[in-house]
Amino acid sequence: MRMPETISEQRLHGGVQGFYRHHSEACAGPMRFAVYQPPQARVKPCPVLYFLAGLTCSEETATIKAGAQRAAAELGLVLVMPDTSPRGTGIDGATGDWEFGEGAGFYVDATEAPWSSRFRMHSYVVDELPALIAAQFPVDASRSGICGHSMGGHGALTIALRHPARYRSVSAFAPIVAPTQVPWGRKALPRYLGDDPQGWTGYDACELVRRQTFPGTILIDQGEADQFLETQLKPELFDQVCAEAGQLLLLRRHAGYDHSYWFITSFIDDHLRHHAGAMGLL
Amino acid sequence: MRMPETISEQRLHGGVQGFYRHHSEACAGPMRFAVYQPPQARVKPCPVLYFLAGLTCSEETATIKAGAQRAAAELGLVLVMPDTSPRGTGIDGATGDWEFGEGAGFYVDATEAPWSSRFRMHSYVVDELPALIAAQFPVDASRSGICGHSMGGHGALTIALRHPARYRSVSAFAPIVAPTQVPWGRKALPRYLGDDPQGWTGYDACELVRRQTFPGTILIDQGEADQFLETQLKPELFDQVCAEAGQLLLLRRHAGYDHSYWFITSFIDDHLRHHAGAMGLL
Repeated sequence: MRMPETISEQRLHGGVQGFYRHHSEACAGPMRFAVYQPPQARVKPCPVLYFLAGLTCSEETATIKAGAQRAAAELGLVLVMPDTSPRGTGIDGATGDWEFGEGAGFYVDATEAPWSSRFRMHSYVVDELPALIAAQFPVDASRSGICGHSMGGHGALTIALRHPARYRSVSAFAPIVAPTQVPWGRKALPRYLGDDPQGWTGYDACELVRRQTFPGTILIDQGEADQFLETQLKPELFDQVCAEAGQLLLLRRHAGYDHSYWFITSFIDDHLRHHAGAMGLL
Repeated sequence: MRMPETISEQRLHGGVQGFYRHHSEACAGPMRFAVYQPPQARVKPCPVLYFLAGLTCSEETATIKAGAQRAAAELGLVLVMPDTSPRGTGIDGATGDWEFGEGAGFYVDATEAPWSSRFRMHSYVVDELPALIAAQFPVDASRSGICGHSMGGHGALTIALRHPARYRSVSAFAPIVAPTQVPWGRKALPRYLGDDPQGWTGYDACELVRRQTFPGTILIDQGEADQFLETQLKPELFDQVCAEAGQLLLLRRHAGYDHSYWFITSFIDDHLRHHAGAMGLL
């Protein structure tokens, strides 16, 4: 494991907000991520919450816009914000389309060339980054949670459902819950994973929850004025399949809120408390 | 008065975060500003807090990075974030220097050509914008406060000291308290106001507080790891002159914090409570 390089570290709410760069084996190139260490981390390892961002976003987006650090400082939670894909891949077609390629990794391990050489965000988020975080930061990795927004909500749900023993808790803002059924997923998944729809189902929360539930309540917040609600998000599909599968789900719909980080920051404290409860911090 | 044009309005913490554009008479051109209306503003006029940003910033900076809306929603405070200067002036030399011109209006009414035709941010912030806000938004303008960061802290202090009857409260983060004595001010003030140093003193908080104190405690937060602390900010100068003049000042120094919005967001709640107290909201 190569050490991460520190881009910046600044004092925030009594803790440290840092940005880092390292070489990723999974993605075969440099990756950036952000970490917030609460003041409690100076004296003891703290539980860790991963936040996965959505299309067009980077490790900076939630770090700057979600406002999660205030509650993290109160609760004693380390926050980790990865980038949403490898960058500077040089692959033809990897840039210029906000719905695919760089900034749109969809948290899959691509199997199709040329994407399979670099776009392996599932392994990166599940294995490589947590190993690095555990080795380099004062975290109690046995208490990990995962959260995300939109494409990152899809990432959080699918990762938690595939690896329920790795995470104490999972939550999402306006997640893509059924990518195999909506335009964003039906555009990106075949290019990353090939034309066989069977291969996509391992990255579809609605499909995964039929196979294995998550041992704990999944929290989802959804704005009712979200421009993508009816075409791309369809939380009612996940609600129905969770009911059928016996998955505990708290799906909250909020009148007037859209898809933006103004929505996320309005409810981020509730999500941090959800994770903190599962981690024994409350 | 021409009506402002709505650029966007989005739900945030139960209220509305908006961005607007209007024609400014003071600055003889289009200006942008942001307003946060807390949920209480739906049913009654609310006190209003102006936040003035610093060099290189715009109406978006504090709106996105300061995280003030959460406490504003709890307290029932309207927030107004103006831009830091006119934009697109076309004046030769108005762009390309982050310390002067567009993005660096220093909250003065320029007297020197060509700047005097457009760079009249003092009148804009003190008169024109509050009149528009009072006419177009549900505010109780008799309860106004003003706050700012760095160059905007200079703006907040000088405006409150020149117009103490207009504001119930004033606070600042890492303000420029003595622009006539530091490089930022000694570069910008002569170009806006002419070579006579006497003309600069009306825009220097240390000079102003000798003439007239503010009827209330001034709150200033300063990070001790601020890269501009010793060269540009020098809060000890203001501390000394306030003591001599009988001005109540709460100057807090915070170990480890720098000049960034990570510092501001760490203490913004304290500032909002400072203003809310003076406005009778607590």
